[in-house]
Amino acid sequence: MVLVSDIYQSRTDNEAAIILRQDPVVYPGPYAQGEFALSEHQLRGYRKNGFIQLRGLLSETEASGLLHEANKLVEASGRERRPEAVYEPDGRDVRSVFRVHRINRVFDRLVRDGRLLDVARQILGSDVYVHQSRVNLKPGYAGKEFYWHSDFETWHVEDGMPRMRAVSCVVLLTENNEFNGPLMLVPGSHMHYISCIGRTPVDHYKKSLRRQEYGVPDPTSLDFLVDRGGLQSAKGPAGSVLFFDCNAMHGSSSNISPFPRANLFCVYNSVENHLRDPQAGLRPRPEFVAARDDVALLERVEPRQS
Amino acid sequence: MVLVSDIYQSRTDNEAAIILRQDPVVYPGPYAQGEFALSEHQLRGYRKNGFIQLRGLLSETEASGLLHEANKLVEASGRERRPEAVYEPDGRDVRSVFRVHRINRVFDRLVRDGRLLDVARQILGSDVYVHQSRVNLKPGYAGKEFYWHSDFETWHVEDGMPRMRAVSCVVLLTENNEFNGPLMLVPGSHMHYISCIGRTPVDHYKKSLRRQEYGVPDPTSLDFLVDRGGLQSAKGPAGSVLFFDCNAMHGSSSNISPFPRANLFCVYNSVENHLRDPQAGLRPRPEFVAARDDVALLERVEPRQS
Repeated sequence: MVLVSDIYQSRTDNEAAIILRQDPVVYPGPYAQGEFALSEHQLRGYRKNGFIQLRGLLSETEASGLLHEANKLVEASGRERRPEAVYEPDGRDVRSVFRVHRINRVFDRLVRDGRLLDVARQILGSDVYVHQSRVNLKPGYAGKEFYWHSDFETWHVEDGMPRMRAVSCVVLLTENNEFNGPLMLVPGSHMHYISCIGRTPVDHYKKSLRRQEYGVPDPTSLDFLVDRGGLQSAKGPAGSVLFFDCNAMHGSSSNISPFPRANLFCVYNSVENHLRDPQAGLRPRPEFVAARDDVALLERVEPRQS
Repeated sequence: MVLVSDIYQSRTDNEAAIILRQDPVVYPGPYAQGEFALSEHQLRGYRKNGFIQLRGLLSETEASGLLHEANKLVEASGRERRPEAVYEPDGRDVRSVFRVHRINRVFDRLVRDGRLLDVARQILGSDVYVHQSRVNLKPGYAGKEFYWHSDFETWHVEDGMPRMRAVSCVVLLTENNEFNGPLMLVPGSHMHYISCIGRTPVDHYKKSLRRQEYGVPDPTSLDFLVDRGGLQSAKGPAGSVLFFDCNAMHGSSSNISPFPRANLFCVYNSVENHLRDPQAGLRPRPEFVAARDDVALLERVEPRQS
């Protein structure tokens, strides 16, 4: 189904455009008081900036255990040539492994951990499911840059996600520092939707997960956002957790430092925001990139001592 | 002439090797007391780290005037297709313009400015000339990374520079910040010479000024250096000046930020360290990359008020 009047049009061969956000950033709902929910002050920051970083939410010991799991998973996925393993543009190294919460028990538990889930449900104001999970690698000496983008732009056009009611949760599995290409975000950018130029080719995702060519914001729109909000980078020790709105503009530079960077991404989507058909007659992307069938409510678990 | 026993051998098809520096870092000489010479404390830092950054040595107003000149020069050099203009790997944008101190009066004066020259002569302990000068651009949204290298390794092999007795001076023409790919240096790396693998093809420089493929240090050697010294990035406001030893290991990440980065490089070489023949039968690189004939002593000028 294509919406008759889509408020978040993009890639329609029109000019680039900047559209005011039509959705809440934080949704009212039954989960405002969860054990690990954000404080009023934190929530204000999230509403204003479109992201919040929680330093040390997980311990470094936990993060180190998760990194170990992630490395095993990457190694095995590469060896088995699993479809969930996505390679760098040069085709040699694994850049990401998707759907890790279904492939691995530790990550299955992690995405349901109260410390993450309480915040996601609080922000989205409802029960949630995992729209996408992945481990992202930026190895030392060879990590590639990832250009500016809003995830929601892609999910709206290519996956048919109706509204801005999803939040990405990033668990830092290694230190992210000024040298190894940390995530950079534009504070406040989540309040504007950058409609992009150019139609989407069929099966674009196979390439776009490696290098984005459509759904790329134009420099004038980026200037507009950065002039208003500046830039911030999500640096921090392993175990820190970043939550960012699905429409926050973000990207990252290359990593020529010796310090490998590894992060776990889990995108929570509201159960009120299930995917519809992709736009412009595109075929749905695979389940491991955008969950359509596997949308079970997440059952919360208590954090484990470690 | 090829040295019979070269202490800084590289690219000889041997294994990579780490060779202890055989040269002083700061040379005794007649210029220890210049008006703008470094203090004992600063000199100790330079000796230890292989670099020193002087925040605000030039005013932001001066830097802004220099940036204006640099932009004019880049524009004209590109338009006239001057050989001194070197392009990005994709061939579209000018990455560097060389020999700017001979093309432009403002830069001619700048490289003789007491604030720079006093420090260069103090460190090298002798009169000096300009081995190479250039403006380096890293435009917003599109600046490319530059991988780790020691300049001396290249100058020794490709230009026949005999000893480590040259210093690079970098004038920040724009702010260099954590977002726009500032120069990263490995403190203490100047004390070890990383001998690289692989012979050098003829006319390598045409490509290497854009993207280095030979004279690239191996990861094990880089790990060795960074384990000992860590990393530092040369961030600072426009007008800040960085001096770094010719053998200091350095590189920089890509720049996807909207903030353009522009720096002026001037490499001072000691008059005791004139170039000899390149190694392994290579043809000398052009004069604008490595001065062989144009090696006049620099005559000092007093800084202008601004």
